[in-house]
Amino acid sequence: MRIALAQLNPTIGALNQNKEKVIKYFKSAAENKVDLVVFTELSLSGYPPRDLLLYDSFLNRERDLIVNELAPLTAGSGPAMIIGATHRKESKLYNGALLLEKGKIKSVHLKTLLPNFDVFDEERYFTRCTERKVEMLDNLPAALTVCEDIWNDNDFFTNPIYNTDPLVTLFSQGARLLLNLSASPYHLGKHNLREEMLPFLAKKYNSGIIYLNQVGGNDDLVFDGSSLVYNHRGELLYRASASEEELFFVDTEDLYKPAEITVPPDRDDISTVLQVLTLGLKDYAAKSGFKNVILGLSGGIDSAVVACLATAALGPKNVMGIMMPSQYSSEHSVEDAVELAENLGIEHRLISIEKPFRTFINLLNESGGALQDLAEENLQARLRGNILMHISNREGGLVLATGNKSEFAVGYSTLYGDMVGGLAPISDLPKMMVYDLAAHINNISHKEIIPERTLTKVPSAELRPDQKDEDSLPPYNILDPILFHYIEEKLSAADIIARGYHEDIVKNVIRLVDKSEFKRRQAATGLRITTSSLGAGRRMPIARGYE
Amino acid sequence: MRIALAQLNPTIGALNQNKEKVIKYFKSAAENKVDLVVFTELSLSGYPPRDLLLYDSFLNRERDLIVNELAPLTAGSGPAMIIGATHRKESKLYNGALLLEKGKIKSVHLKTLLPNFDVFDEERYFTRCTERKVEMLDNLPAALTVCEDIWNDNDFFTNPIYNTDPLVTLFSQGARLLLNLSASPYHLGKHNLREEMLPFLAKKYNSGIIYLNQVGGNDDLVFDGSSLVYNHRGELLYRASASEEELFFVDTEDLYKPAEITVPPDRDDISTVLQVLTLGLKDYAAKSGFKNVILGLSGGIDSAVVACLATAALGPKNVMGIMMPSQYSSEHSVEDAVELAENLGIEHRLISIEKPFRTFINLLNESGGALQDLAEENLQARLRGNILMHISNREGGLVLATGNKSEFAVGYSTLYGDMVGGLAPISDLPKMMVYDLAAHINNISHKEIIPERTLTKVPSAELRPDQKDEDSLPPYNILDPILFHYIEEKLSAADIIARGYHEDIVKNVIRLVDKSEFKRRQAATGLRITTSSLGAGRRMPIARGYE
Repeated sequence: MRIALAQLNPTIGALNQNKEKVIKYFKSAAENKVDLVVFTELSLSGYPPRDLLLYDSFLNRERDLIVNELAPLTAGSGPAMIIGATHRKESKLYNGALLLEKGKIKSVHLKTLLPNFDVFDEERYFTRCTERKVEMLDNLPAALTVCEDIWNDNDFFTNPIYNTDPLVTLFSQGARLLLNLSASPYHLGKHNLREEMLPFLAKKYNSGIIYLNQVGGNDDLVFDGSSLVYNHRGELLYRASASEEELFFVDTEDLYKPAEITVPPDRDDISTVLQVLTLGLKDYAAKSGFKNVILGLSGGIDSAVVACLATAALGPKNVMGIMMPSQYSSEHSVEDAVELAENLGIEHRLISIEKPFRTFINLLNESGGALQDLAEENLQARLRGNILMHISNREGGLVLATGNKSEFAVGYSTLYGDMVGGLAPISDLPKMMVYDLAAHINNISHKEIIPERTLTKVPSAELRPDQKDEDSLPPYNILDPILFHYIEEKLSAADIIARGYHEDIVKNVIRLVDKSEFKRRQAATGLRITTSSLGAGRRMPIARGYE
Repeated sequence: MRIALAQLNPTIGALNQNKEKVIKYFKSAAENKVDLVVFTELSLSGYPPRDLLLYDSFLNRERDLIVNELAPLTAGSGPAMIIGATHRKESKLYNGALLLEKGKIKSVHLKTLLPNFDVFDEERYFTRCTERKVEMLDNLPAALTVCEDIWNDNDFFTNPIYNTDPLVTLFSQGARLLLNLSASPYHLGKHNLREEMLPFLAKKYNSGIIYLNQVGGNDDLVFDGSSLVYNHRGELLYRASASEEELFFVDTEDLYKPAEITVPPDRDDISTVLQVLTLGLKDYAAKSGFKNVILGLSGGIDSAVVACLATAALGPKNVMGIMMPSQYSSEHSVEDAVELAENLGIEHRLISIEKPFRTFINLLNESGGALQDLAEENLQARLRGNILMHISNREGGLVLATGNKSEFAVGYSTLYGDMVGGLAPISDLPKMMVYDLAAHINNISHKEIIPERTLTKVPSAELRPDQKDEDSLPPYNILDPILFHYIEEKLSAADIIARGYHEDIVKNVIRLVDKSEFKRRQAATGLRITTSSLGAGRRMPIARGYE
């Protein structure tokens, strides 16, 4: 049996547009004489469709397209199709894989394991399916599964999340092929995890595996494709692109013989992060209707890295950097920003905030002179926010917020100031990783894109004379691991102190994280990179007590 | 058996402080010679604790307090205690009612039905308990249940959500008393619903019912107390306060004889809304550490109503109104704002935005003159936001955003402008209901608090000459029902048009709602009043396609 696999990049909610894409790839596959064409989880709605799933009209329209436009493609001598879609049964909604054959929906395979942790909310929408049956695909008994269904192996995971494992059921029924329709977003280490678990399953069940994943960015989540094919010995036969749509082909007999050539394993590293962030930024802009972006360039490393990502994603003509120095800005900040902008070939403008700052000081301070307090630091950041939003509102363009995860976590940022923007591309990237990414960008460019001084200067918000980040925060090489232990590993202060960090520092960091929840609640969408992003991945009360 | 019921107002996460409160009420009840003292769902963590539940240290501390500080209170001749708390069993977490007796945890009753819709995320944290047993309380077999457990009756609800009903199990085991520990937040119609369903259950099962609810605001959710006691004939014997902590007593024999006096039913109306919003505002401020609030006073009805709520919640000394007219403000706007502030007895300041606006125009417009475009409208709103935040940052005080649900839904608001603030008290209140509330406030005050002109003037953002809301939006008496059909009832455009609304208007409203999701994602927390608030109650993709 020859199968075509379509790793596509749907736009959430765009049922018609996604359907057109499915048809295009189906037809292209059919020309290649395949028996079956497979698409990813919730292909027509895109994943995650969120509360669009609560609209009957949306579900009806999706079903209508499947019955009346997709199923007919499989009539006559056309290949069959397996597509991820919702399915209603006895007034309950399921997340399913639908087999379309000879013009009809031949069978449905409904998801059993519904992720409802971290960024996932599937229990909000779907019912768990408790009955699973293998599907005969051209005489090959197949375990037809949806995403999370394969992620609960008792032998592979020390603490499986769910009480049931649909693979046990399906392979006890004699399955010989594992076909998985996924929409699995990237986080650091995900590549490694997939490429450890899937060959483990292949060997355990002596089964070929075709793992098909969605590609593309949808709001905070970046789906990194990288669809995989393993033979029954767990040898990797194919890995699809991590950033592009792709149609690829598998002859099932190849899954049951030793591999002639195996694909080397993939390990997440900083180049993966670069690829994921670029894809996420590109898709967020395109899918929300923006061709170009605007960002403040401070001369510092965060805005430099975001400018590089935006240029990689959209091209230099579609990126505009605004330099907005104040009386407290260092001399080199504008120079460094200009150098970066010229290296990237992006438009840049200089708009000083000194005049509006002075006007506000005259208006708000009885003395008419600056008091250099926290309120005035925030005011400067907000005047910059005003300017960026004004340019966006007048000329168009998506504003990018340039904050990193470390400062975002401890609230070292100004709400409605440097936090303004529709997207915060690196707000899930710890500061130390921002440095790694900057170095990597310069490395692969074979020339200095980000100026040396930007890489080496002492981090500063430049909101008062001689200010440095370390006046308020521990050094980032201490802050970042503490944040990792607290936010990702969810350790207590005592546990973190026991790992060798200074008690006062740990307690202060935790206090800062807890107290700044209100800022994060109003933050721009960030691109998820870690296992605990500070958006939908971490849901904390705002008004609360502390122990 | 004599039972004391404690309707308390916990602070989320404040384990120690909540425990002290539990001890205080327990001791007070014990002095009244009771056999049992009952507390609400998740009493020590407060509800909803959200991702605090993912911290082992938090769960361990909660359990430690129960075992070492609460259970000992029940030793010797002390009364027993039933308290809502988490419970771990075989590495799974449950939401339970714990019976403490003779110094120990005697038994646990774990929640079966886990709400995971609207604002609720219990599947994220808890496992469903499938085995339920009655508890003998002083020879009375009791159905000991937690909140949602009682909300799935097949005879009462046309479409019950869950496939199982723990009450069927418990009453088939001979339960004679239904005791429910709740943390059930208010929405419009909730009082009516409770007071229809509970007597229905009492009669169906021929059982007394004690329904004990949490009281107080926690972020967006306002828990409205109103704990209820029914006899086995479904007659209402007692209703607790909708806004205050309260300890009340029930003699169980009273539940099995005809009522001597029954309490008249309660119907939600605008006075309930006033009570709920006042409580929500008061608790949000107190629990996030603010004594006072700051808001912009435009002379319009929204800011007037928010000023009244704040004054009712915190007292006039703790409310400051800032009037920030521009060259486009009508003459009466400052007059009306001053009149309101004087009627309320709150501090008010006048800070014109004309000078900073002119400075920005000079800086950003080549001509140096105003262009009166959308960017400049937004700029004015953002300059006001700057001023409010500056006063808050310098002098302290929680900034209140004054937008209503109608404008919030269609994006008729400026991000980082009039949307700034830590809390948006009326952002879930449709504009027509804001008018009702304003009229009600004047009615119950027996004098004109909100000036007549504020109530009758044509709504305007006053961001350009002669601007009116109706230039951009349908009249609110048409907009509000369309929004209700789309957001709360989740009808499609076609369904709404079929109800008699003009096609162009409906499509335009839906387009505005869909396109402004990015603004709402960065909005201040609002107090939930409807069944579909625009915060955690509605989770929509931002970057998306449309059909």
